[in-house]
Formats: sequence, C-alpha cells, structure tokens
Amino acid sequence: MTAVQHTSGKRVNRLSHINTSAGDLLNKLEAVRLVCQETGCAQRYLTHDALNAIAQVSARIDDARGSTEHTARFQEYLHRMQDQDLTLGVAMTDAKGDRSRRPHEQANVDSYLHVVERSARGIVISGTKAIVTGAPYVHELLVMPCRNMEREDADFAVCCAVPLDAPGLTIVARPAGRPGEKLEHGEALFSRKYGQSTGVCIFDKVFVPWERVFYAGEWEHSGHLTYSYATHHRHSCIGARAGFGDLLIGAGALMCEANGFDPGKESHLREQMVELITITESFFACGVAASVYGKADAHCEVFMPDPVFSNIGKLLLATKIYDMHRIAHYVSGGLIVTLPGPDEDHNPETAARLSDVLRANPAIPYEQRIETARFIEDLTAGYQGGWYSVISLHGGGSPAAMKQEIWRNYPVGSKVELVECILERGIAADGSPAAAPHDPARAITRNRQPGRCCDTGCTTPGQP
Amino acid sequence: MTAVQHTSGKRVNRLSHINTSAGDLLNKLEAVRLVCQETGCAQRYLTHDALNAIAQVSARIDDARGSTEHTARFQEYLHRMQDQDLTLGVAMTDAKGDRSRRPHEQANVDSYLHVVERSARGIVISGTKAIVTGAPYVHELLVMPCRNMEREDADFAVCCAVPLDAPGLTIVARPAGRPGEKLEHGEALFSRKYGQSTGVCIFDKVFVPWERVFYAGEWEHSGHLTYSYATHHRHSCIGARAGFGDLLIGAGALMCEANGFDPGKESHLREQMVELITITESFFACGVAASVYGKADAHCEVFMPDPVFSNIGKLLLATKIYDMHRIAHYVSGGLIVTLPGPDEDHNPETAARLSDVLRANPAIPYEQRIETARFIEDLTAGYQGGWYSVISLHGGGSPAAMKQEIWRNYPVGSKVELVECILERGIAADGSPAAAPHDPARAITRNRQPGRCCDTGCTTPGQP
Amino acid sequence: MTAVQHTSGKRVNRLSHINTSAGDLLNKLEAVRLVCQETGCAQRYLTHDALNAIAQVSARIDDARGSTEHTARFQEYLHRMQDQDLTLGVAMTDAKGDRSRRPHEQANVDSYLHVVERSARGIVISGTKAIVTGAPYVHELLVMPCRNMEREDADFAVCCAVPLDAPGLTIVARPAGRPGEKLEHGEALFSRKYGQSTGVCIFDKVFVPWERVFYAGEWEHSGHLTYSYATHHRHSCIGARAGFGDLLIGAGALMCEANGFDPGKESHLREQMVELITITESFFACGVAASVYGKADAHCEVFMPDPVFSNIGKLLLATKIYDMHRIAHYVSGGLIVTLPGPDEDHNPETAARLSDVLRANPAIPYEQRIETARFIEDLTAGYQGGWYSVISLHGGGSPAAMKQEIWRNYPVGSKVELVECILERGIAADGSPAAAPHDPARAITRNRQPGRCCDTGCTTPGQP
Amino acid sequence: MTAVQHTSGKRVNRLSHINTSAGDLLNKLEAVRLVCQETGCAQRYLTHDALNAIAQVSARIDDARGSTEHTARFQEYLHRMQDQDLTLGVAMTDAKGDRSRRPHEQANVDSYLHVVERSARGIVISGTKAIVTGAPYVHELLVMPCRNMEREDADFAVCCAVPLDAPGLTIVARPAGRPGEKLEHGEALFSRKYGQSTGVCIFDKVFVPWERVFYAGEWEHSGHLTYSYATHHRHSCIGARAGFGDLLIGAGALMCEANGFDPGKESHLREQMVELITITESFFACGVAASVYGKADAHCEVFMPDPVFSNIGKLLLATKIYDMHRIAHYVSGGLIVTLPGPDEDHNPETAARLSDVLRANPAIPYEQRIETARFIEDLTAGYQGGWYSVISLHGGGSPAAMKQEIWRNYPVGSKVELVECILERGIAADGSPAAAPHDPARAITRNRQPGRCCDTGCTTPGQP
Repeated sequence: MTAVQHTSGKRVNRLSHINTSAGDLLNKLEAVRLVCQETGCAQRYLTHDALNAIAQVSARIDDARGSTEHTARFQEYLHRMQDQDLTLGVAMTDAKGDRSRRPHEQANVDSYLHVVERSARGIVISGTKAIVTGAPYVHELLVMPCRNMEREDADFAVCCAVPLDAPGLTIVARPAGRPGEKLEHGEALFSRKYGQSTGVCIFDKVFVPWERVFYAGEWEHSGHLTYSYATHHRHSCIGARAGFGDLLIGAGALMCEANGFDPGKESHLREQMVELITITESFFACGVAASVYGKADAHCEVFMPDPVFSNIGKLLLATKIYDMHRIAHYVSGGLIVTLPGPDEDHNPETAARLSDVLRANPAIPYEQRIETARFIEDLTAGYQGGWYSVISLHGGGSPAAMKQEIWRNYPVGSKVELVECILERGIAADGSPAAAPHDPARAITRNRQPGRCCDTGCTTPGQP
Repeated sequence: MTAVQHTSGKRVNRLSHINTSAGDLLNKLEAVRLVCQETGCAQRYLTHDALNAIAQVSARIDDARGSTEHTARFQEYLHRMQDQDLTLGVAMTDAKGDRSRRPHEQANVDSYLHVVERSARGIVISGTKAIVTGAPYVHELLVMPCRNMEREDADFAVCCAVPLDAPGLTIVARPAGRPGEKLEHGEALFSRKYGQSTGVCIFDKVFVPWERVFYAGEWEHSGHLTYSYATHHRHSCIGARAGFGDLLIGAGALMCEANGFDPGKESHLREQMVELITITESFFACGVAASVYGKADAHCEVFMPDPVFSNIGKLLLATKIYDMHRIAHYVSGGLIVTLPGPDEDHNPETAARLSDVLRANPAIPYEQRIETARFIEDLTAGYQGGWYSVISLHGGGSPAAMKQEIWRNYPVGSKVELVECILERGIAADGSPAAAPHDPARAITRNRQPGRCCDTGCTTPGQP
Repeated sequence: MTAVQHTSGKRVNRLSHINTSAGDLLNKLEAVRLVCQETGCAQRYLTHDALNAIAQVSARIDDARGSTEHTARFQEYLHRMQDQDLTLGVAMTDAKGDRSRRPHEQANVDSYLHVVERSARGIVISGTKAIVTGAPYVHELLVMPCRNMEREDADFAVCCAVPLDAPGLTIVARPAGRPGEKLEHGEALFSRKYGQSTGVCIFDKVFVPWERVFYAGEWEHSGHLTYSYATHHRHSCIGARAGFGDLLIGAGALMCEANGFDPGKESHLREQMVELITITESFFACGVAASVYGKADAHCEVFMPDPVFSNIGKLLLATKIYDMHRIAHYVSGGLIVTLPGPDEDHNPETAARLSDVLRANPAIPYEQRIETARFIEDLTAGYQGGWYSVISLHGGGSPAAMKQEIWRNYPVGSKVELVECILERGIAADGSPAAAPHDPARAITRNRQPGRCCDTGCTTPGQP
Repeated sequence: MTAVQHTSGKRVNRLSHINTSAGDLLNKLEAVRLVCQETGCAQRYLTHDALNAIAQVSARIDDARGSTEHTARFQEYLHRMQDQDLTLGVAMTDAKGDRSRRPHEQANVDSYLHVVERSARGIVISGTKAIVTGAPYVHELLVMPCRNMEREDADFAVCCAVPLDAPGLTIVARPAGRPGEKLEHGEALFSRKYGQSTGVCIFDKVFVPWERVFYAGEWEHSGHLTYSYATHHRHSCIGARAGFGDLLIGAGALMCEANGFDPGKESHLREQMVELITITESFFACGVAASVYGKADAHCEVFMPDPVFSNIGKLLLATKIYDMHRIAHYVSGGLIVTLPGPDEDHNPETAARLSDVLRANPAIPYEQRIETARFIEDLTAGYQGGWYSVISLHGGGSPAAMKQEIWRNYPVGSKVELVECILERGIAADGSPAAAPHDPARAITRNRQPGRCCDTGCTTPGQP
C-alpha cells in the first residue's frame, strides 16, 4: 500500500504515488482492489490518477517550452501533499451547457470553468464543475479540463489545486447515502459508512496562487491531459470494481449457504457463481495486461497503462455490472427485497416466531441470513446499488468514449497488413490473378497507418 | 378494462374475470400493460391469476369426484367478490424451512401453512406465508399451496379465502417505498404513490368457514393448481413489465431530449433505444403468442395461455430487466445519481445559478431535465428500482423454474421424429447403410414421448 | 398450405397468395415454418413476399393516378402465375457500385438496373442484380427496386416479371451446395438435396412487354415498394428460421441421446436445449404478434404484418443464429468435426472396429450417432451452415436496416407523452415547482410526433 | 520463438520448451499468437503443453517414490526430441464407450487405451484414442490419460511416446480441409495450406520400450497429469485464438474498405470492429494474467499458468468465437456467400463485366474485394470455419469442464470471510443483534475452506 516516490526518495501512500514501472501499475491495481474490498468504492485513487496525468503534462509543456518550470512547480506541490497525505478531489466535468457549442461559444460563460483574471500573484477562476465525486469531504480539489480545447478556448484551459475552504467556492451536494433514513431504520450498514457523495462545485472568482497552478492557457495540451487522466483512471476503476466483485462473490456464497444450498452441488447456482467470477476476473485481467504492457511517457519517467487494455477493462465493467447485480439477485432469492425490515427485528410480538420459521439452513441462524440479505440489498437493490451501477457505466467516461479510444489506439493497420501479406502469398502460390500489391495511399480506413507496434514486429498491443 | 363473466352475465373488472377465449387472454394482457404504464406494477392482476387457477382446479376436483360442489362453491364466492370489486392478495409462498424436507417433515410445523382442525362449520389453519405481495392493503387473501404435495402432506394442501381482519392473522410488512425519506426529501414522486409492500403473513389458528374453502386435503391437485396459477401469472407479468418498459422508453427519449441529443441522429443512442424497444416488445410478443395458442382446460371452459410461450416471456423479462436498467442509465447519463437532490431546488443561494448552468438543451428548462432524471432514478436506481428487478427475476418463480417448465412442456419428441424421418429418407436415397428405424423403446430423452402437437400434425407449440 | 385468392375465388398455393386478414398472415407464417422444417430454407416464400408488395404498390399508383390499370395488370399476371403455380425469384439487390452515389450518378450505369428504351410494346432493361437467391432454378424473376429513388433516378424505378429464358439475361451462379464434393464423399445428405444457389443476374437489353411491367418510372413509389416487400419478407424469414430451429432442436436432442446423455437429467445440457428453444420460440412469437397486429393497407385489401414486430423478429434471428450454432455444437460434442468421414464407413480394415468403440449409448448404434453428427455438421459447420448464418444476418436487410425500421415505426411519441403526463400530475400533487406543460414545438426527438397508435388510445404498436 | 532449456543449456524451439518463469509463460503465449496469425491454428503448441505436464508428473512420481528415475527418463527423451525439433501429437481422448462406466468396467476393453503386457523391454498397449489433432502428420504421438483413474483402472493409467510408424498403430483420418474440392475450384486459399486433420488412432498391441514410457500403472497421478496438461493447453489456446482474432480484425477492416466504408466514420461498423477487438483482447488479457500469476510446481521448477485465469480465458474464447464469426459476417456483408465462385474468375463471357460492376470502392479493384471475401468465407463460413468454432468450443475440454475448474480453483472461501468480517464489524458498530461469530464447522459451501491465497493476505487468485 506504500511506494517510494522516485523524485523525493520518501515512502508515500501508493494512491498518491507517481508510477515509474509496470510493477508500480500492477501494485497500484491490486492496492485499489484491496481497498475497495473493504469499502465498495474507495475514491482515494482519483488523487493518484490526476497526479500522474499532471506529471505527464507538466513534462510535455516543459519540453515544448524548453523549460523545467512546470515540472518543478508540480513536484513541489506533489511532495507537499504526499507529506501531508492529503486526499484530493477531481473537479473535471464542466456543466457544459449546449453540447453543440465549444466552451467559448456558450451563452453562459460559467458553463465551463475559466480564468477571469491573471496577476503576478496568481489567477482568478469562475465557472461550474458539475460532477465532483467526494467533493464535500476531500482536502483539496484538482481543477482539470474535461475536453480538447482550441485556441479560442485558451481561457478555459486551466489546471490547478484549490483547497476546499477557498473563498468563492460553493459546493452543492447530496448527502452521502440516505442518512436520515438510516438512523431511523437501522438499514444499509455498509453504505451508511461508505456511501459516496457527489457535488456540484460553483467557483465564483476564486483566487489561486501560481504555485498551485499547473497550467493556464496552454490549450494545446488539454487533450493529452484528459487522455492521460482517463487512461490512469480507467485502469484504477478496474481494480475498484474487482473489489466490488469480491464482495458480491463472498456475499453470494454466504447467501447460498444461508438458503441451504451448496453451489458445488446445485449446478444452476454454480453456473451463476462462475459467471460472476468470470466477469470479475476477466475485466481484472485487462487491468493486469494494461499494467504489463504499460509504457513510459516519451517526455518523462511516468508509466502509463496500455490504453487499449485499460479501456477494454473499463468498458467490460461498465456494461457488466448490471449482470453482476442480476447474478447477486439470482443466487440470493427474492427475499432481499421482501423480508421484514430491521425495525421488525426487535418487535416482541413477532421477532422470535419470524426468526424460527424464516431460517432455511438449520445450521445458519436467521440473523445471519437476514444480515447477508440486507448487505446484498444495500450493494445492489437500493440507492447505493444504483449509484454503483450508474457510476460504473458513466464514471471516467461513457461506453461510447471507451469505444472511441479503443478504436483510436488499436493497431488495426498492422492487422490489415498481416492479411494483405497472406492474400498476396496465397494468390501468388495459386497462380490466381494477383491482387494488386497494397497501395497505402488508397486506404480509407482511418487508423490504417501502421499501428504503434508493427515496426518492431511485436504482436500485442502496447508492447514495446 | 371490463368483460362479461360468462357464469353470471355481469360486466366485471377484467382483472377479476374468468377467461373463456384467446381473445380474453389477449385483452387481459393488454389491460395489464395499460394499468402498469400508469403505475409501474399493478398488483391487481394477481387476483385474476389466482381466480382462474382456482376455477380450473375446482372443475378437476369435481370431475374426479363426480360432484359439482367445488365449482358451485367457488362461483358463489367469485360472483360475490366481482360484485364488490374486491382486490385479493395471493398468500402462496410458504416459509419453507429446510429445503431438503417435505412439508410434513419440517422441524417447525408452521414452516408450511396447514389445517389444524376441521369442523362442520369450517377449518382452522396455522403457519407462515413468507412473501405476500400487497398484503397490507388488499381486501382478502387467497391462501394457496406453493408446491406439489404427497399423501403425507394432505394437511398442507389447502386453498381458501381469508379476510384481512380475520382473528389470528398477523401481517409483518415493510412500508411501501421509503415513506419517511420521501416526506423529508420530496423525492421519489412515482414510488411514493405506487410503491409496493410485501408482507410475511403469520396465521395462528385462523378459522375459515366452508364457503370460503376451495380445497382442503385434496393433495393430488396441488401440483396442477400451482402450475395453472403460475402459467396465468407469468402471462400477466409479461403485460406488466411491458408497461414498465413503456415508461422507460418514454423517459429515456425525454432524457435524451433534455440532454440535447436526438436519437434519430446520434446512432449510439438510437442503438440503445432500439435495444430497449426490442427487449420490451419481444417478451410482449411471447405474451401475444401465449394468448393466440392458449387452450381451454379439458375440465371446464377456462382458457389458459400456452405454457411454453408464457414461461419464455417471463424468463426473458426476468433476466433482461437488468439490461433495461442499463439502457435507461446509458441514455440518461451519469446525472441521475449525481445532480443535487430536491432539497436544493429552493435554496436561494444556489437554485437560480444551478438552474441556469445545468440546462443542456436550450429549449428544455432545467426543471424538466431534473424531474425526468429523478423519475428514472426512482424507477431504476433506488429501492423502487431494486424491487422491480428482484421481483421480475424471482416473482412468479425463479428462472430455474421457468426453464424446467419450458423443457417439461415443449414437444421435443415431435422435433426428434422430424429429424429421424429426414435421416431415414436421406440415407435411403443415398444407398448408405440404413440407420435402424427408430425404436421408441430405446429412447432415453425424458420427454421424447410425442409432444402435445404431433398427433394432429401441427407445427407450433400449443396449437390445436 | 393453400388458401382462396379473394380476387379469383380459386384455391391457390399459400406461398403465392395475397393476404387479406391477420389469420392469413398467421397461416402463412406457420406454412413457412412447416416447409422449412423439411428443407432448412424454402425460398418459395420470396414469391409471396414480392407479390403482396406489388399488389400494394399497384393500388397506390392507381389511387395516385385515379386509374385502375396497374391493379388490373398485376391481377391478370397474378392469376396466371397462380394457375401455373410458378416459383418466382426476386431480383432486387443491385450491384450498387459506389455506395456514396445515387443510381443516376454511378460511373457505370449498369450498377443499377434501369430502363434503356420504351415502346408501345414494352420496355427494354439493362443492368446487374447482384444477389438473387435461387436464380438458376426459378421460373421467372420479379425485378424490383432496392431503395428509395429520386426524380433523377426515374429510369431506375422499374418493377417487372422476366422469364428465366428471356434473351439478354445471363445468370452467373455458384453451384447449389458443393455437389462435386458430395458425390465423392457421400456427405452432406441434407444440403445435397436442399442446398441453395444465389446468382448474379446480368440484364443486357432484355425486352419486357407491358403486361409484365408493374411500374416503370414512378420513382416516388419505390420507397414504399421496398418497405412493403421488406416487411412481408422479414415476417416470412421468421417462419423459415423457426423451421430451421426445429431441425436443430430435434437433432440436438437426438445427439444427446446418442452420446448417452438425457437433458432431463444433465442440467447443463438442459440449460442449452432450453436456450435453443427460447431463441427459436421468442423470435417466432414476434412473427405471431406481427400477424395479430397486422393491418390492411390504406389503399387496398392487402394485409401487411406489423412492421415493428416483423423487424424485431428478423433482428433477433439474424443475430442469434450464431448462438443457435453454438448450442448445437455444445450439445453435440466435438465429434461432429473430428470423427471419420463417410468414405471410411465401408473400409473393411476399420469399419467394424470403429463402429464398436465409437458408440456411446449402448442402445444407439454407431451408425445413428454418426449420421446425426453429420446432419448437424451439414447444418452448422460447413458451407451450408455458413450460408444459413450469413443469409440470416444479411438476407432481407442487415441488422442496421432492421434497427432503422424499428426506430422509424415505433410510437415513441406516445410513450413520451405518457411520461410527461405522469410527471405533470406527480409534480402538481407534490406542490413542487411545476414543470412547464409540454410544448410539442420544442421537441427535437425526431419521431416524437404522436405515434400511429396514440390517437385511438391503444397501447400496443400496430393495434387498430 | 526460441528459449534456453534449463536442463540442457541448449537453445530450443519455444514450443517444445519447459517453462521456468512467468516470463516464459508470457513469451510462449505471444509466440503462439504470432504463429497462429500466419496459420489460423498452429498445433505445434500441443507438443509444449504435453511436455510441460509430463515434466511435472514425472517429478511428482519421483517425489512419491523417493527416486529420480522418471524425471531422468523424461529429460533424456525431451532433449532428444528438442535436438531433432520433432512435432508430437497428443493422443489423449479415449473412445470412452458408455459414459456412465469407468475404464475397467467397459464392455469393450478397447474403449480406453491400456497396457496389455509388460516385459523387461517395455510395454504393449491396445485401445482407441478417438480425437487426435494432427495425427497423420506429426512425428510421434504422446499417449496420455484423459481422466482420473482409480486403483482398478491401473492398466489404463499409461503415458508414453509412440512413433507414427510403430507396428500395430492405425490412423483413420479425414483429409485436412477438403482437398478434392479445392483443387477443382481454386477456393479456400488459406485452409488448403493450413487445414487441419483429426484422426482416430487404433492401437493394436503396440510395443513401447521403457525409455519411451513416462508412467504405466501409477493411477493416482492421472488426475494431476490431466489437470496440468489441460491448464497448459488452455493457456496456449488463448494465444492461438488471439492470432485467429487478428486475422479476422485485419480481414474485417480490409473488407470494409473494399465495400467503400470507413469504420472510423460509420459508427455501426466501428461498434462491431470494437466488439471484435474487445472479445479478442479480453480473452488474451486472461492469458497475460495467467502468466503473471503463474507459479512453480511444488515438486519441480516447471512454471504453470494460473488455472483460474487460464480457464476463464479458454471459456471466453470457446463461447465467443461464434460472436467473432457474427461480427466478421456483419462487417463483410452478404457477398461472402453469394458472389460467384473462383471458377467464374476467368470466364470470358462475364469476368470483365462482373469485375467492373461488382467493385464498390472505386479505389479497390474487384479482385481484392473478392479475394478478401473468400478469405473470410474460408475462415468463418465453410468447413474450416466450422472446425475453428467446434474446436474452440470443445478442444481442451468443454465449457462445462472450464466452469468446474474455475469453481474448484477459485478462493471463494477468502471472499466469504471478507464479507463475514464486514458484517460482524458493521453489526457491532450498530448495536444490532450480533450475528454469531462465524463457525467454519457449519459451512456447507464446498470449497469454503480458506482459498489458496488468504493465508498470505493476497487479494488476487494465484498470487504468491
């Protein structure tokens, strides 16, 4: 759970560490899974994802300018926050307004966060970040752009750190979980403790001193910053949802037991449990492969997971979490939404009788059966479960975004050439009319240009 | 929504009507869809499903005994409840206890409801029915067996009507929806009104007069009663979930509009909407086919939907409701679980500003966007959504039960013979070594015996 | 298998009959299933699909012109071909050339079939129809347009009947099945008899007399002709592939038996068989619903199946035939591609020994096991199987075309209004800020205009 | 493609190399993918899989006996075959006979291969191996058991190497591909060269000298030998089918191009291509994870891939190859089974005209379009395609076998404990009635005993 930060030599929390090897990526992936096994979804990894992306873009800006200033400024901030072991939120998704217009074209300029003033001391920013996970209970917010920017959008290209108590910052948030309800009903044992809150952050002329500004105006780097963050983040999501999968696997097996069934003997239950395992471990495997085929940034030592495998893993978990819910319900039976609620547990009129007739496996007390059922309800059939599924589907980008990235990064060109070679050889051997040798100029397939890999002859995406 | 009861000539509520034609079945299916378009899930059809099944079993018991008593007693009850337009709950699922033991073998005799005393005036029953949908707010409960019974289980073979205020009956229920929460937060507009409650019904020496007892002890008819009820009920569920699908289709299209997207132009949204339509209409089509191929009971005029199509439709909706949730979330975007809650709508500090930056389609006010988002959250991402998915999966029997029924009722034998004929003809024509003509005696495939259909040469299941 | 043609009063082959009721549609669907149970895929229904569509378009042209000429000419042709019980092929798919250009813009004018000359006696046509199922062995070809046309494409808007021996017509076809191979190896008993051939039809100045010309130049009716044909055809495809499903269900059960397994006892085999049944009957159910909700054309008595259900059924079979192959392979085991071929059946060195050790169920002779295995190989794992899957996927339009039609015909508008009503009522009851009443003018969702159904209050697509 | 054999220090073919590290496993996986990119399916890796498994079992037998004899005998054989770079077939699957009886209970003793005589010089074996991939064209066969054996089956527990020309060995095989047809038609360019043959191998008193006998009678090691072989083999299959996926990805993109479509612009084609990539790379990722989490055998240095990830990867490819076929067909269009065959390519009457009207993308000649279409037909829609799908589904064990292995090897116990800890903590904090602390003795879930991993606190299956 810790690692040595290469720029400072200090041992730091792995979830605020900058990766410099494939091993770092794999360790981070496992660390996230472990934390999420306990918590359902530990948002601490957002800190990691953003810091690694900012490290990469800082080096790129410095390389483009021939300076070292951005990297130095970022490292100073990084070491300070690592020493204090801060949790940082990611304020990325702007309110966006009319989707058909670019940031500078919006009717309401606050639809995207932007710089309203620059001085020797720092910048002043205004605008709305619409979906900020954990906003009310982090130490600071990392403000980041959420899209490509063009020259006219330069004022909207800003990345900086803002403490939560900065003057001018207002956070409008739903309560984490449904606390009112919980106190009354004694339910939702898990989400009561680990429920999440997402906030809308309204910045109204918030001042940020230069030492906390990582870029402001360098619009041409926005796309890469977004891409790097998304790749790190999708990789982390894989570990997170694998931890969630572990909770469902364990709870599902417990529930079978409490219902009096052994999946080892009841093949229809085993089929379901194996499907749950297969879903969980197959998207986790994509995280492992993304680590193994990770590569150092061309501009610095930061290691980034392979984008194809990261996006595939995220795409799988995003769409299959609904199947995970289905399986958890299948193996549990209908009782997770039908049995009496906790307010009946102590009802002197009925508690003893219910407790006797509603046990199913004579070896398991009713209390364990009902607690396990409520745990599964909490994870999959109430507001917490709804949050998990929607955030898996859309958090870190929608499925459509994943697919775009997979297509953009996949070496289709090298596969096309492979088949062209086979066809040419085969036809030559056959004496058939020779297909014209492939003329790359006529290719219309967009990323048909040689893939990343084919020059060095490797066969797997992302391998050096 | 109404129909003429053939035994009384009176016009009655279609959801307490006895079907006597394929048209009745189709009209009932559409009536259920219509009601559930307004309510999400209208439990009124449970009344219909149970009454039709009891009508069938009453005729069978009479035929077996050469009497007309059971049918007469049932009709008297039926006409009375139709006149009063009562809503009846179905108390079917027993507490069950140890799944590996039959009713009479349970350690706790109250694990299954049973007759404890018989007299000239009626019977006295005790035991626990564990999952009774709508228990707290129906007029009467129809007590029914939930499984096959054997001779030793005769005391557990009981079917009767019990008013909700019968002495000795205790109902332990969760509140419908989460009322406390709703009053506080102003959320869940839909489930606040149409939320369901499921109860555990504890019968402690409840007296039932003979005119309300439809059978008591005729254990050999339990299997058919359960089967008939399940077939009617699964057919009704198809209509119900199609109505739910209509709500999601409408809300999904509204949400796209509020987000500024037209599925007619954005092909990834259209793909999802078409998938949602395809899921909904393909299981509804199974309900239509079950109606068209429905048949009259051999013992009376009651029409029953085709069991193969009914079970296939229910199986599809049971497993695909999770995909329906996924699609609703996909087309809505993450905001359904991340935007501020209703308690922020009137906050003078922020409401106006949020309302301005959080609209997406300039033509749609923020209020409509957020109301639609909350409607989808209510249907798919909170306790109400969890209830819909679990009850779709397990209500009316689990997927494993559907599969068993499909296999048991499908005319596999006639398909086997079809292929055997082709093989024999083909081989003969070929001069190949003739396969021995088919010897039915050697068949091991369990339901290889001629299917229902093959004697009359028809090609589709259930067709006369 | 026969029906009475309403315009002549004669009893005709149902597959060349014009439908005038929902019952006709259902009978046709069942007739196609029955024929395809024997043949795998009976192309005779193409005749039916085209004739019904031409009947519809003839009435529309007459209505537009205030004449009765087109209908009269078509009926004369229809009655003649019904009397002779001809089989007609459908020459619809043009060679198409550059997909980004319309017919009249093509570099090679023969990319689409077109009229090159008109005279008092008839028309002369040239061009290429690229994919004509059954071309070499039908009596006549019905030439039809394959897309919408615009005014400039008028010469390409032509529909007529051409006998196979018309001067100027050349058909380039693959042999049906792989006959050479079969004679040698004694394999492919089924496809040898029922294998299909598809041809490219080159029309080089083919003369067609006016009595065989159904339209020539009425470009504005091309879209409707294509749409009507596609709807009839997709409906027929549903029956056809259900017959194919019956063959796989029967053969799969026989194979289990020959392998010594009873799906009634081996739950993993039963799961697969039930999935195969579920796939087959759920798309067939869409055909039933399309029949039940079929409607008469506004211009004539011809009944057309509901387009939403027809397209959903075709979409399901198109994509799920691959799952049908998978299941057939699953329940059969690997032997369908690994056991010795028929040329070993009579090898005196080995035949007896193989026949003894390769039986699995002691009650089933090896010969039956191997014949069943070869039957399944023929249907699913050779050229015939490949043809079935590709033709299911693309025949009668690709999945993308189905989805477009589903979206275009579905009453999304009425579902949107349903939700708007609920939201307005709910909000009013709550005292929440009222959403502005729905203003249809601001709607951007393309087919939000009231669906076909909502005026009459019906809840299901296509219902009158 | 080569590696250094640690026992000899010599550089050998990687596909006959014994693995001693996770890196070896990953390199083997990539090597298999690379070879299969050229050949569709390179059976050479079967040699590797069997040799590694025999190395493991030899060490286990030696450890059990306190000898080194088996390992020494195996190494001598290994080094000799590595020096000669032999290709070995795997004769594993017995004819099996009645599935409900064990080997020694079969009516026909030759249903399983067995030792009929032992002497100082060697053993004599008889029996039938039913499915031997590549049998006619390998150098030697490695005879191996295909199941667990019990004491009474000791004669059936035999593993040895038999040259293909050994007296008494008869191989009955289908021709590779369909050679007759190919010579005639000029089709199947790819499968003509790389088509596979599977043979039935009849052993009739075949003598095997002791230096080629790896075990004979040690029945208690049969299960582990089968398990080790299966794990290595399933891991190799992952690489193989990823290479097949590369061919489909490349050919699919070429076909889109030839049809005039760019998947980068046509979103429905991009969706399909991304799904094909996602399928291929997600099962490949399981192979990567199986390598990374591979472990050394407790009895020797041989590294074995993690069985959970290996089985999940194989399960995914087994069932999803049908989806891969579907996608290849989708993006290609119907022409792969409908365009004229190669015998028309040189037909002077029509060739030029077809070649002109049947090109779609003006920049791509018809010859390339048709060659690509035929390549896809060969891979997915003829006998070669059928072979790929069935062999993917059943080769190396059926899906049911994979699921059994996943359940058997997965650390469900550690996940159960994780949830129990959370429930106990949560309940304690809540003041709720404490669930009784977990009593392992009451557990009925079969593999609830602590998983492999949980003692060392690791969170991922197979991690040390």
